[in-house]
Formats: sequence, structure tokens, C-alpha cells
Amino acid sequence: MYNHQPKDESCPLCIFAQGNETEWNKRSDIVFEDEKIVAFISPRWWINNPGHVIIIPKKHHENIYSIPDELIAHVHINTKKAAIAVKETYYCDGITIIQHNEPTGDQDVWHYHVHIFPRYANDNFYQNFYNRKFVSAEERKPYADKLKAYFDSKK
Amino acid sequence: MYNHQPKDESCPLCIFAQGNETEWNKRSDIVFEDEKIVAFISPRWWINNPGHVIIIPKKHHENIYSIPDELIAHVHINTKKAAIAVKETYYCDGITIIQHNEPTGDQDVWHYHVHIFPRYANDNFYQNFYNRKFVSAEERKPYADKLKAYFDSKK
Repeated sequence: MYNHQPKDESCPLCIFAQGNETEWNKRSDIVFEDEKIVAFISPRWWINNPGHVIIIPKKHHENIYSIPDELIAHVHINTKKAAIAVKETYYCDGITIIQHNEPTGDQDVWHYHVHIFPRYANDNFYQNFYNRKFVSAEERKPYADKLKAYFDSKK
Repeated sequence: MYNHQPKDESCPLCIFAQGNETEWNKRSDIVFEDEKIVAFISPRWWINNPGHVIIIPKKHHENIYSIPDELIAHVHINTKKAAIAVKETYYCDGITIIQHNEPTGDQDVWHYHVHIFPRYANDNFYQNFYNRKFVSAEERKPYADKLKAYFDSKK
């Protein structure tokens, strides 16, 4: 339904969700997962909001129009869990949740995903929305490690 | 948990959810509701994205940190329903979902709410993020009527 994924594309988030690594996503990025979803540090950072978390369903659904009800429910219960974890480990001043659909809706990876952004005073988040860059796995690791330690402490 | 609502404030979205009208929200704005949530046309429009929908739980929870799991699940199942309805009645090119927490996270009404924005080619949505204005109930009504007719057709 209103899909934009090229027919010949292997979905990189499916490859990652199935236990592999890609150019963009490494196993060390994962902060938590269960049988249905995985949450990880984004490989691309908004300039003043480093280490934001992305959560995806493991099963492929391109966008909000087609993701099954029980799965969008599960993703967002876990979005809440990730938002609390980011708040309590990054000591940020707020959290903004964003989910994009279709190219005109700013989607650019064809697998449903939710962004959990830490917000800081004067981060000019929206003014800087297109000011973002890919960062190395090494730069992402301290953020993933912090969140993993938080979840381990809750077990 | 990390709440910002002034102690003496009567929550305007609670007043609305309980069946009343406020300065900002009228009964004619409602596009659908059930015992737990209500979806309505926003009284404030982003300049190139008129008639966007807001969905709220009827029970008061300020933000993502404190909304119960079963309620955030229900809100987002219905966010999907609203997104499909907006797509199919506005003929927009995409949908962007946004949910803000805390003042620094751009929240400015202290009751958890999700924005469902219709997106259009060259709408410069993020560049124009603070370019928004309150509009009259009369201006909102055609959008609400269109969505209500859509939901009626699905019954």
C-alpha cells in the first residue's frame, strides 16, 4: 500500500533484524530486542542530538499504512521503554518521537521505523533537521553501551 | 514523571475529552472516538499542512514516560487508522507522525497527544516548523467532515 521500495532492493533493516550486519548497522548498536522488535543506535545523527535510538519490527512492513495492529502496538510500547531509558541515561531535557512515511513524508529507508530523539535546550532540532551525518560504529558504541547497562540494571 | 503541567491548570484536553468544548477544541472537530481515545482536527495548523489530525487518550497522562502500555498501544493502533484515513481523503503524498515530550521536546499542551501530519511535495515542513497558526472551527470543519464521511463509509 503506497510502497516505494525498489523491487530489486534487499531491505538493509531486514538483513540487520535477521542477525547480520550491514554497512550501516552493527550488532554493537543494539540496545534491546525481543522476538518481534529491535532497538538500536541510529547510524545517522542529527547534529545536536547524538546517539538517538531507532526501533523497528523484525518483520518487514514498509510503513504505517501496512504494519499490523498488534505490531504497531508492540513497537510503541517499546518506544516508551526506549524513551524512558534515553531520558534516564542521557539526562536530556525532552524526547521527540518521529515516524516518517513515503519519500514526501521524509522516509528514506523502506522498513517501518520510529525515531526516539533526545532533546536539549537550544538544540534547534527542527531548524537543523537536514543537518545530519553518518557516524562510525565506534562513535555509536558508548551510547549503546550506556543504554544496555541501563536495561541490564532493570533485569 | 518529568511533568511540567502547572499545578493549578485545568487540562484543556481533559475538558474536551470529557465531552465539552474549549476555546481551542470543538465537538465538530472530532473525526472518531471510542471509550479510550478521541481523534480530532488540530486547532493549530502548520502553514503548508492544513487539517492535520491529533489523537489523545481520554484519560490524562502528561507524556510518553507515564502513559500506560495498553493505552499507548491503543493510541498507536488508532494513529495508523487515522493515517490511512488522512492519506485516502486528503490525497497527500506522505504522512509524518510526531509526538513531543517536555517543553524542550516541543510539547506545549500537558496531555499526551500524537500529531498525524499530511505531507505534500515541497511543503518545507521542517523548515516551516514554527510557522503555524490557530484557525477557526469553520476552517477546520471541512476537514473533519471529510474524515467523518470516510469513517462512516467504512462502517
